[in-house]
Amino acid sequence: MPNAPDAVNLDDKFGKFAKHWSPHIVAQMNDFHVKAVKVKDEFVWHQHDDTDELFFVHKGVLTIKYEDRDVTVKAGEMHVVPKGVQHKPVAAEECEILVIEPAGTLNTGEAGGDLTAHEEPWI
Amino acid sequence: MPNAPDAVNLDDKFGKFAKHWSPHIVAQMNDFHVKAVKVKDEFVWHQHDDTDELFFVHKGVLTIKYEDRDVTVKAGEMHVVPKGVQHKPVAAEECEILVIEPAGTLNTGEAGGDLTAHEEPWI
Repeated sequence: MPNAPDAVNLDDKFGKFAKHWSPHIVAQMNDFHVKAVKVKDEFVWHQHDDTDELFFVHKGVLTIKYEDRDVTVKAGEMHVVPKGVQHKPVAAEECEILVIEPAGTLNTGEAGGDLTAHEEPWI
Repeated sequence: MPNAPDAVNLDDKFGKFAKHWSPHIVAQMNDFHVKAVKVKDEFVWHQHDDTDELFFVHKGVLTIKYEDRDVTVKAGEMHVVPKGVQHKPVAAEECEILVIEPAGTLNTGEAGGDLTAHEEPWI
């Protein structure tokens, strides 16, 4: 799919799916995808050996757990997870986030497991 | 400056400067910068020959003019300008936007001129 020809409305995109931890692609910039993800409860510990990962919170509160600290990211805030660093996203309540990372980046990084999204549909 | 160690709050960042069309870097992801920009009135027609450019509107309404159409981007919306395509950002009222593009991308692309930001400070 080419770049979105018009404006991408986040509320509209988040209204199109319900599954948690399932990235849906909403835009492409060069070799990067912008992915809309609904998250709740705990993801798996993982890392991305080859890339940073930008998180932007649209609604709710996301916590990025690191081995030595937690970073709280609220609506209207962003946080960049450095490449190669173990982290675990968690959200007590459902949270709507954007993730920006190179196309093809797996959500579970090197960890794999049941939450790995092998398909990331365009919406 | 390394990646922001904590969450980057957009309202906080936009409170740190006032000048229009002056990009301020708020985060880095791989070789890309996330830039906070306040815009008002008309920018110059220009293009970026080597990169797409992602616009996200935090507050206000941005219009991206193309040679054959206008794209209106409101708060909570994003739009990707394809590389090599002439465009002109305009905003009737002050508008707070994020621009994500490769570090070193000049705001006026190949056009140059008085609005070119030769310095893009980290805030």
